[in-house]
Amino acid sequence: MSVQQPRWSVPTRAVDEPVLKVYNSLTKSKTEFVPTNGRHVKWYNCGPTVYDASHMGHARNYVTQDILRRIMTDYFGYDVHFVMNITDIDDKIILRARQNFLFNRFRSETSSLSAELIGQAHDAWKNYVHQRVSKGLPNEERPIAGEEDTAWPRLSHLIEDKTWKSECLKRDEKFDMHFSAANRTFSALATARALLASNQKGQDVAVKLIDEARDILALSLDEKYKDTVSDPSIFRSLAAHWEGEFFKDMERLRVREPDTLTRVTEYVPEIAEFVQGIIKNGYAYEFEGSVYFDTRAFDSSEGHDYAKLEPWSKGNRELLEEGEGALSTNNGRRSASDFALWKASKPGEPSWPSPWGPGRPGWHIECSVMASAIFGNNMDIHSGGIDLAFPHHDNEMAQSEAFHNCGSWVNYFIHTGHLHIEGLKMSKSLKNFITIDEILQRFTARQLRLAFLSQMWSAKVDFSESLMSGEVKTIETNLNNFFTRVRALVSQSRAAKDRSDGQHHYESAERELTDVLYESQSAFRAALCDSFNTPEALKIIRDLVSRTNIYINSHGKDLNVSVIEHVARWVGQMLRMFGLGEGEKSELGWGQEGEQGEQGTNREEVLMPYLRTLSSFRDGVRRLAIAKGDNSLKDILALCDRLRDVDLVPLGVALDDLEDGGALVKLVAPAELLKAREEKRLKAEAQAAKKAAMVEADRQKRLAKIERGRVPPAELFKPPNVPESTYGSWNDDGIPLTDGEGKELSKNQRKNVQKDWTAQKKLHDDFLAWQEGHRQ
Amino acid sequence: MSVQQPRWSVPTRAVDEPVLKVYNSLTKSKTEFVPTNGRHVKWYNCGPTVYDASHMGHARNYVTQDILRRIMTDYFGYDVHFVMNITDIDDKIILRARQNFLFNRFRSETSSLSAELIGQAHDAWKNYVHQRVSKGLPNEERPIAGEEDTAWPRLSHLIEDKTWKSECLKRDEKFDMHFSAANRTFSALATARALLASNQKGQDVAVKLIDEARDILALSLDEKYKDTVSDPSIFRSLAAHWEGEFFKDMERLRVREPDTLTRVTEYVPEIAEFVQGIIKNGYAYEFEGSVYFDTRAFDSSEGHDYAKLEPWSKGNRELLEEGEGALSTNNGRRSASDFALWKASKPGEPSWPSPWGPGRPGWHIECSVMASAIFGNNMDIHSGGIDLAFPHHDNEMAQSEAFHNCGSWVNYFIHTGHLHIEGLKMSKSLKNFITIDEILQRFTARQLRLAFLSQMWSAKVDFSESLMSGEVKTIETNLNNFFTRVRALVSQSRAAKDRSDGQHHYESAERELTDVLYESQSAFRAALCDSFNTPEALKIIRDLVSRTNIYINSHGKDLNVSVIEHVARWVGQMLRMFGLGEGEKSELGWGQEGEQGEQGTNREEVLMPYLRTLSSFRDGVRRLAIAKGDNSLKDILALCDRLRDVDLVPLGVALDDLEDGGALVKLVAPAELLKAREEKRLKAEAQAAKKAAMVEADRQKRLAKIERGRVPPAELFKPPNVPESTYGSWNDDGIPLTDGEGKELSKNQRKNVQKDWTAQKKLHDDFLAWQEGHRQ
Repeated sequence: MSVQQPRWSVPTRAVDEPVLKVYNSLTKSKTEFVPTNGRHVKWYNCGPTVYDASHMGHARNYVTQDILRRIMTDYFGYDVHFVMNITDIDDKIILRARQNFLFNRFRSETSSLSAELIGQAHDAWKNYVHQRVSKGLPNEERPIAGEEDTAWPRLSHLIEDKTWKSECLKRDEKFDMHFSAANRTFSALATARALLASNQKGQDVAVKLIDEARDILALSLDEKYKDTVSDPSIFRSLAAHWEGEFFKDMERLRVREPDTLTRVTEYVPEIAEFVQGIIKNGYAYEFEGSVYFDTRAFDSSEGHDYAKLEPWSKGNRELLEEGEGALSTNNGRRSASDFALWKASKPGEPSWPSPWGPGRPGWHIECSVMASAIFGNNMDIHSGGIDLAFPHHDNEMAQSEAFHNCGSWVNYFIHTGHLHIEGLKMSKSLKNFITIDEILQRFTARQLRLAFLSQMWSAKVDFSESLMSGEVKTIETNLNNFFTRVRALVSQSRAAKDRSDGQHHYESAERELTDVLYESQSAFRAALCDSFNTPEALKIIRDLVSRTNIYINSHGKDLNVSVIEHVARWVGQMLRMFGLGEGEKSELGWGQEGEQGEQGTNREEVLMPYLRTLSSFRDGVRRLAIAKGDNSLKDILALCDRLRDVDLVPLGVALDDLEDGGALVKLVAPAELLKAREEKRLKAEAQAAKKAAMVEADRQKRLAKIERGRVPPAELFKPPNVPESTYGSWNDDGIPLTDGEGKELSKNQRKNVQKDWTAQKKLHDDFLAWQEGHRQ
Repeated sequence: MSVQQPRWSVPTRAVDEPVLKVYNSLTKSKTEFVPTNGRHVKWYNCGPTVYDASHMGHARNYVTQDILRRIMTDYFGYDVHFVMNITDIDDKIILRARQNFLFNRFRSETSSLSAELIGQAHDAWKNYVHQRVSKGLPNEERPIAGEEDTAWPRLSHLIEDKTWKSECLKRDEKFDMHFSAANRTFSALATARALLASNQKGQDVAVKLIDEARDILALSLDEKYKDTVSDPSIFRSLAAHWEGEFFKDMERLRVREPDTLTRVTEYVPEIAEFVQGIIKNGYAYEFEGSVYFDTRAFDSSEGHDYAKLEPWSKGNRELLEEGEGALSTNNGRRSASDFALWKASKPGEPSWPSPWGPGRPGWHIECSVMASAIFGNNMDIHSGGIDLAFPHHDNEMAQSEAFHNCGSWVNYFIHTGHLHIEGLKMSKSLKNFITIDEILQRFTARQLRLAFLSQMWSAKVDFSESLMSGEVKTIETNLNNFFTRVRALVSQSRAAKDRSDGQHHYESAERELTDVLYESQSAFRAALCDSFNTPEALKIIRDLVSRTNIYINSHGKDLNVSVIEHVARWVGQMLRMFGLGEGEKSELGWGQEGEQGEQGTNREEVLMPYLRTLSSFRDGVRRLAIAKGDNSLKDILALCDRLRDVDLVPLGVALDDLEDGGALVKLVAPAELLKAREEKRLKAEAQAAKKAAMVEADRQKRLAKIERGRVPPAELFKPPNVPESTYGSWNDDGIPLTDGEGKELSKNQRKNVQKDWTAQKKLHDDFLAWQEGHRQ
């Protein structure tokens, strides 16, 4: 082929593709996201410690992570491997499981109320007062041993004082909880003593005391008998139960499952090996069966930094202690910053064999080991709640970099922000603690997700009544209305058989709306590239919907349905991408085979053909009934109205009767329709009342006129209907002939009285007829 | 905060992200895809000319385009605006619509077989032989005018010879089709002559001849009467019908609708303006009401090239003529390469006003105008079947670049390859022409899509029995088996209550399988970046599935379900991304709100509340209409019947009307209901026929009885009503007194004749009364 094609040159970019930047906790700034291996992303997310029901804090964290994950996979198209762990070895789990076990055994073994039981509970109460309540009390109010019972009534009185109580809460944020527990037991003890005195000592009253004193008794039983607990399944089954509940909650919140799930109990041998590796590298040491990380050795060695995320928190005692757990000891640490990699287990604590004797992993080491087991010595993203940044994530990184001898184990650390409830930190002692189960009784998963989307993932969210009932409901309603409207328009336009009228209806307004869509798509992408700015992305969608509504409102019958369908499809795709599509499930497989539409059909698709048939039958009946113009067909028209206004309302079907006798069928939320019907009813009532008032006024006017006719015309010009001596004489009909002075009436006067007489004659005749009618 | 975070550096890429390259017809090579505006992609795809049923060639083209579009949007995440046109003005549409119209009119106006009709068909046949059949015949066999009838039997004999026939097919690829049509008519003419000779000339035999000669008559009628066709709706309704069928086929093939659809009939004024613009720029000229593009002027001007896609096809007469259409003329063109922008319309062709008189757009100009109307003077991608490259796309580009005065109107031109059937080009004359409806009777949409995915989009596809029953079935079965197996394993593992046995089961085999998944994901991306190499991508998925099956087989009870679930989810996602998910539909909205699992509810549960409402509304209407007992309400009752018998039947809803006026609602399979309706109709017909037969028998019986009364009683015993000499003498009433031999009748005989006479008297009186009645 000797003829050549002309030269072609690569198109010039008018606008570059935006670049994804992520707020990285390792720099506290937005940095360009560069995955190390093509578009593959290794992502490790800190999972829950499973010892209790998941709460709003979990919801915020995991829903937000899910949103980020969906954006990365479904919008940016990364091949993400998402790993999450379950912490099922932890001091909180050990304590909770052991206390539950000992308490339940004690409760079931108690058969009657006795002085001994009361004494046991009283001792526990006294210990509790000293160990828990006292730290919140002012020094001078802390009861001396033996004086607890006499001191308590005074304390009960003092706590009524708000200033006093808030001083106590400053000293101990859990003071309220501790005081309540002690107070409840104090009352229960008094009741029990009285019952025992009156010889009531059945199992029921014994159990009542035990249950009221639960928190206090569990602690004291644990202190006394913890060494006797040795069955590992006691710990495992508590964790398994709460893990199950956690995933049920996540499913309800439409949080995708991780690709890989790791459990600490399944990685203990690997953890021991990993700890050995750190010791070998010179960054850890053993003391009495426990192993600690040597933060000073690590921090001072070439190429390593301890606490990269929060160097300013190094040595923060409170944070460190919380990280170490309630069962840890402080003995043998070379520095206050050093933390446990391996804990020697005391009796009553689960244990695994190790080179240092029976023990269990520390908290931070688990994530280092499990993430390394899946990803090796580097990952692209590590995520978790912001409260985990120090010490958990800093220690985790130090451990892994110590083990792998590498400079950066995690490339991007992303932390979701705190959650507050009505401006306050959520806590059981503040009584604003909300479980996921509770919140889902009040709001849908979609509404919660919308609430989190409307805030920056890294920012503190203040979850409040006004956020949910204000912004979130508004967004949801606007979007619902928009989709309902577009669906109705699309389905109407498809039902029209020949779709073309020879006009393209793609004029400047349509071009403009399409341009708005383009701009929204670009702005949406820019927002998500700007460290997943979902509040901005949502705003862009809302603005686009508003602009489209304006187009629809201002174009009536001339509108180009295809343009708004194009907009609505994109909006729907983006909302589903965020996980807001309630129906969406990441299906396993490629979908069932079968007849078209039978599978993934939604309500709309299934119902519309039937509803259109129903509606056009009704159209036909109405048109015939109206055409006949026969009054006797009123009841058929009433049936048509009833179908629209009563029967279809709870089914969520709206029929908008149009002028041509046809109706537009819309599928909407039943609640919405019921509300609209109520408004219509109120309006109709108001109109009816107005009409009734007018009818009554009319009736009164008519009655007054009839009343005027009560006087016979012959009496009209005689007293008392005219003043005495107005006239002197009258003819037989009672028409005056002369005035009071006997003077004959003038011609003009005669004419006037004659006119009045005739009018009265008419009125009187009417009156008589009315009287006749009412007599029958 | 004086403490600083340590320095962080941007991660180094071990492997770069692959870059999308596309095989661009403008360079005949793979070039990097660079969209001009961020990640926004303007894409125009050539749609169908709607004059007939869509076939396998359409399926290949549109399914393949749909696959490319899904990869661009759902995999690479581009914001694509996909525009497609419908060509509803075209010489093929004009001819088809006009011939259909003229033929149908002729057929319905013919009431009997006549020598005239036969002569007309014979003339048409002779013309057809000369105009169509002859070009395939060897010179020496072409019949001389007047000798067609005598030559034909010899030709019929010759065509049995395969070598002879294939020679003819070389001269004219449609020879077979033309010869068959002529042969059919020749036989029908012979039959018709014989029938007429035996005086059979009913409408049925006339119509038989017309139908057999349809192709030939339609042509000759069009030649004679085309000028009389002026109603534009004749053309429009043919196009509208086939457009509707096209989209029904596309839906069945799960091809997504375009975002924007443009129709030529809706853009005629814009086309005329566009043509004026080209004239103004000096690249077109008018001749006798038509406007032609000046290819030489364009090609020789600075910055412009004519035929960028196929410069070697410039001046290819055959391709050019096909592009110009059957109704075009060659007069007035300055160069053989020049093509029509605007065609003056002759009588019998639809026309629109223009500066050059009534006419219609040329074929190529429509796409230039409509694509420009939506996208302006540049687009990222233009696509279409490879057969459109020259002259259609080359002319389209030239026009647009001439109008916009720009250098490159299209950045990337992508052409889907040809489709062959069992190695041969598909054509009606080769009898391997398959419509989409036909193919979907044999294979599912998924199987067809798999077949197209397994071939390179730009390559020729040979669609064969062995492809479908071999490779495609194998892939489908393997994938189905894989998903079934993984689903069973996942559901088994979830059913096990406590999921952990204290082992992680993530050993070297699992790490290896995960690595295989990573590599597959990278290779899959690389394949799609390599100009959408779907055969390679499918192969990668198949290999991954094999590797996973090997892992499953070799690990028995110890296998890690989570790893294979991870693989299966990714495989499923990619298959659905290709549009292979049968359930998948791009939903409008964000999915229904509601409790989990509400989606998958069955048809019955969703529909019944609505259907009961519909039915009770109908009950109400019927009861009111029946109660009024007014004949004028018959039409309302007819509507009720129509709803039951017509409208609801295809929706699978049966209404059984009960005696109390209410109806029982049943949901059944539509096919079942249609069958039941048909049976009911047949039964009703049979009953009506039986009743009619009984009525007729009754009538015949009555007539026979009356006939018997025709004889007056006085004649009853006289010849010819009795044989000569039966009786000898009669009384005045004609009652016999003696027999033939003069012997007096016995008492018994007398009694009998008296009885017969009385009976006849009665019959005769009835006869007279009947006669009287019929005389009036």
